[in-house]
Amino acid sequence: MTDSPGPAEPALPTSDRVRLRRKPDRGRYDRATIDAILDAALVGHVGWVLDGQPYATPTAIWRQGDRLYWHGSAGSRMVRETKDGAPVCITATILDGLVLARSGTDHSMNYRSVMVLGRAHAVDDEGETLAALEAFVEHLCPGRWAELRPATSNEIRATTVLWADLTEASAKIRATGVHDEPGDESWPAWAGVVPVGLVAGTPEPDEHVPAAMTAPSYLPPAGMRIER
Amino acid sequence: MTDSPGPAEPALPTSDRVRLRRKPDRGRYDRATIDAILDAALVGHVGWVLDGQPYATPTAIWRQGDRLYWHGSAGSRMVRETKDGAPVCITATILDGLVLARSGTDHSMNYRSVMVLGRAHAVDDEGETLAALEAFVEHLCPGRWAELRPATSNEIRATTVLWADLTEASAKIRATGVHDEPGDESWPAWAGVVPVGLVAGTPEPDEHVPAAMTAPSYLPPAGMRIER
Repeated sequence: MTDSPGPAEPALPTSDRVRLRRKPDRGRYDRATIDAILDAALVGHVGWVLDGQPYATPTAIWRQGDRLYWHGSAGSRMVRETKDGAPVCITATILDGLVLARSGTDHSMNYRSVMVLGRAHAVDDEGETLAALEAFVEHLCPGRWAELRPATSNEIRATTVLWADLTEASAKIRATGVHDEPGDESWPAWAGVVPVGLVAGTPEPDEHVPAAMTAPSYLPPAGMRIER
Repeated sequence: MTDSPGPAEPALPTSDRVRLRRKPDRGRYDRATIDAILDAALVGHVGWVLDGQPYATPTAIWRQGDRLYWHGSAGSRMVRETKDGAPVCITATILDGLVLARSGTDHSMNYRSVMVLGRAHAVDDEGETLAALEAFVEHLCPGRWAELRPATSNEIRATTVLWADLTEASAKIRATGVHDEPGDESWPAWAGVVPVGLVAGTPEPDEHVPAAMTAPSYLPPAGMRIER
């Protein structure tokens, strides 16, 4: 016996609402796993309700500490209907592979997703909005913010940034190969995983970029996977 | 004057709930545009409600005619709570580019998304379930279904496939360059679009694929964009 600790117990769900019922082995509840997926993802879908009808609205997302942020337009219904504490669900999903089994029903996908349940709040402080905008741009391109034309008060006031805290969240991950039924292994069809990922192409400067300007080093090189 | 018809009038929203309020120029309501985006997308997010809490659940999606289908597991709460006609929103989003402007507030993304509002229904006929499974596999890899080990009745009965019709749907598209504020063009920061897209990697056959078996031609070649 030694004093070295054993493997840490896996984190437990913080609520029954985020506990995975189906395929519980795919669930993760530790903040390190949740944060890593949120920090990789560029787009999330915000679930919200109006008159009993659910909506799933795509939006840019980014994390700052214990909060998940997303973009809104002051005129959008999603912002208007949620910003004062409405219940929301923000889900980020990164697709990692197509899992091609030897029977149709065993086909699957590899992915990493996070679901955050909480209440939406609008940032209503100019300084906090500016900090959130900086975090958004740095999430897209680390190092870019310092080069930008500084935001004006009018621009900041016209920007709506929403957030929810991360106390009630879960991650779901499938990252394995084909799970065929026993006996299917010898069926003469190709089976395996086709890895997929969001990849950057060649950056396209606009017409005002001087010919002599070199592309900044924070731009992802063509062919590089983003949302890693 | 000639008899040739002018450009077709753009299709109108089929309900006020799917009409784009913010940036209406990004809205499209014709089925050709909606179908093209749904047929490209592999993953959607299903919005649904339980006890006033919205959820956004990621799932594989595919279209057959006037219906959008998605996968469920019989044991999942999403299936249990929605399959008998609950209101749902299925949103598919394809990210096409990062739009890097010269000010923080003008940063944006290029994307194509479709939002479908409707009611969820479960396919409860074995033949229809089998046809839906075939459509799902063919959506992933056209030509693969015929090679697979045929599905058994037990497998089909254990599969839950849900659908909603496409009568109330809208598409939203941003596919342009940087929209800087007047005067920002000369600010000395790189600006433009970084195209992004879901790209296939090198297929990874499982350990039961014979060494002599050639990879089927329907597999996307490494480096090919999927969700086109």
